[in-house]
Amino acid sequence: MSAGRIFSSSARGRVSAVGELALIGLIRRWLGAAAPRAPFGIGDDCAVLRPARGRELLTIDPLVYGVHFDDRTLPSEAGAKLLKRNLSDIAAMGGRPRAAVLALALDSRVSLAWLRGFFAGLALECRRHGVALVGGDVARLPGAFVATLALTGEARSRAVTRTGSRAGDWIYVTGSLGRSLRSGHHHAFKPRLAEGAWLAGRREVRAMMDVSDGLAKDIGALTPRGACAALLGRALPRRAGATVREALCDGEDYELVMGVSSRAGRRPFERAFRRAFPRTRLTCIGRFVRRGAVPPDALALADFRGYEHLR
Amino acid sequence: MSAGRIFSSSARGRVSAVGELALIGLIRRWLGAAAPRAPFGIGDDCAVLRPARGRELLTIDPLVYGVHFDDRTLPSEAGAKLLKRNLSDIAAMGGRPRAAVLALALDSRVSLAWLRGFFAGLALECRRHGVALVGGDVARLPGAFVATLALTGEARSRAVTRTGSRAGDWIYVTGSLGRSLRSGHHHAFKPRLAEGAWLAGRREVRAMMDVSDGLAKDIGALTPRGACAALLGRALPRRAGATVREALCDGEDYELVMGVSSRAGRRPFERAFRRAFPRTRLTCIGRFVRRGAVPPDALALADFRGYEHLR
Repeated sequence: MSAGRIFSSSARGRVSAVGELALIGLIRRWLGAAAPRAPFGIGDDCAVLRPARGRELLTIDPLVYGVHFDDRTLPSEAGAKLLKRNLSDIAAMGGRPRAAVLALALDSRVSLAWLRGFFAGLALECRRHGVALVGGDVARLPGAFVATLALTGEARSRAVTRTGSRAGDWIYVTGSLGRSLRSGHHHAFKPRLAEGAWLAGRREVRAMMDVSDGLAKDIGALTPRGACAALLGRALPRRAGATVREALCDGEDYELVMGVSSRAGRRPFERAFRRAFPRTRLTCIGRFVRRGAVPPDALALADFRGYEHLR
Repeated sequence: MSAGRIFSSSARGRVSAVGELALIGLIRRWLGAAAPRAPFGIGDDCAVLRPARGRELLTIDPLVYGVHFDDRTLPSEAGAKLLKRNLSDIAAMGGRPRAAVLALALDSRVSLAWLRGFFAGLALECRRHGVALVGGDVARLPGAFVATLALTGEARSRAVTRTGSRAGDWIYVTGSLGRSLRSGHHHAFKPRLAEGAWLAGRREVRAMMDVSDGLAKDIGALTPRGACAALLGRALPRRAGATVREALCDGEDYELVMGVSSRAGRRPFERAFRRAFPRTRLTCIGRFVRRGAVPPDALALADFRGYEHLR
C-alpha cells in the first residue's frame, strides 16, 4: 500500500507521465478482480448489467481532496471511504450493493503511487462487499482531485425510506456519534449493510436514514409532519471523549437512525437485534412527539447545527 | 434563462448565501417535472427505481468548468451538455435512458443565477429524453465547479458493444466530424439516441461506439485484433471548414461509429437508414482490413492523435 503526497513533485511520478489510455489500463490492473471485463465492466460506452431483483437503488457521492480527506488520510483509506460513503446510503434503505461507476476529475500532477494506493483501498472494499466496479471516466481538473462514485443496489424485500415515522415512535440509532474526524472513524467506519438489511425486515422499523451531516441536522428529514424529535442528551451514544454537541453536530457518523413503532414492544426488538448483531450498539435516544408535547428534558435541537457544506 | 459569470462577485448572489438545504430546495424547483418526489426521486438516501426491462446500462461522465465548458458557454448549454454527454453513451449501446443522479462539487462563490440557468438547461434536456433526475449530492470544492452525472438506461433488444467487428467489415459514421469547439457543436449536438436504437436492431451492425475523443483515437477500441482501420481521408464527413486532421483529432463529435458486416449489402442498409433518418448523414468511411492488407490510399492513423485528457 503506497502512502505519500497526492501531488507528485517528480514529473515521472505523475499521471501525466502515462497519459489517459495507459492510466485506465493501470486502474484496471489495480482494481483486479473488482473490475470485470466489458461489456459487464470497464471498457465500453456503458456497462451492461442484469436487471435488479426487487426494487433497484441508485445513489451518488463525491470524495473531494481537502474536504472529505486530506494529507493525513492514507490513499487506501481515501479510496475505501469513497465506496463506503455510498454503501452507507444503500444500507440506510436496507439494500444490497451491486455495481459502481467512477468519475475521476484530477490534476495532471496527481501521483501515480498515491493513486495506486487509492485504488488498492477501493478494490479491497469492493471485494469485501461484492461490488463490481464496471466503468468510469477520467477528466482533467487543475489543482484538485474529485472522485465521484455512483452505486446501484437492490432491495429484495422492501426499501426503507425516510418517511413513515409517526408521533409516538421510538428513535433508535446504531453505534456511537461524534468526533468522527479526530478519531479516524470518518474513513475507518464499517457501513451498516448487514444491520440495515436486517432492520428492513422488521415491520416495526417505519423509516430509516444514515447520519452523515450530524444527527441534529439529519433527524429533521426523519421527523413526521406536525411532530418533533424529543432526544435525551444523556441517552446519546457518544464516541469516547465526545460532548453532546459533538455527538449532535460533528457529522460523518455513518450510523443508521430510525423510527420504530411503539406498538411493538421495545424489549423484543432490542433483544432480537442484539442476538443478530451482538457487537453493534443499538440505542433508543428518544421519541417523536406531537408539537406542544415536548418533554422538558428533551434537547432543544434548534440550538445545534449539523455540518453545512457550502459555508 | 440566466447568463452571467459562474462565480458571483456579490455575496448575496452566491450559493453560500442560501446554504445547502435551501439550495437543494431551489434545485428541485428549478428541475420541476424532471425531478420526481422521493422515494422515486430526490430526498432520500437512495432513489428507488423499478428494475430495467432487458439489459440495464450504466454510465458516468463529469462536466468540469474550464475543461468541458468555459465563460463563452451559456449556463443552460453547460447543463444540457452534462446530460447529453451521458446520453451519447447510452445511444452508442442502442439503449434508452431512464434515470440519473447528479453530484455537484462547487465553490461556495458559484452564482445562483448561473446555477439556475444550468439547471434550466439540464431540466429541458431531461424532459426531452424522458430522463428522471432522481437524486444527488452537493459538496464544496474550492475554486472549481465539477458536475458529475450517472445515467442508467435499458437495452430492450440487444446492447451493442465495442467488440464484434471483423476484418472485412465496413466502417460507418453518423453526422460530421471536426471543429466541434469552434462551431458550438460540443454543446449544441443532439445525442444519436433514435439512430442508436435503430442501428441496434440491424443485425449487420456488429459493434458500435460514440466518437468523443476524436476518431483517430477512438477507432482503436472498435478495431478487431489483428486488423487495422483503413480510413479514406476523402470519405470523411467533415464539418464546414474542418480539415482531415481536425475531423480525426478534435474530439467532442458525439457521433456514432460502427462496424457493419460486408455480407449484407451496403445499399439496402444505407437506403433503410436514409428512410428512417432522412436528415442524419451516414457515411461509409473505410473498412477493417487484415494487417498487411492496408490499401495504399488509407490514412496512416499513427500520424494523428485524438484528445488527451491528462497532458
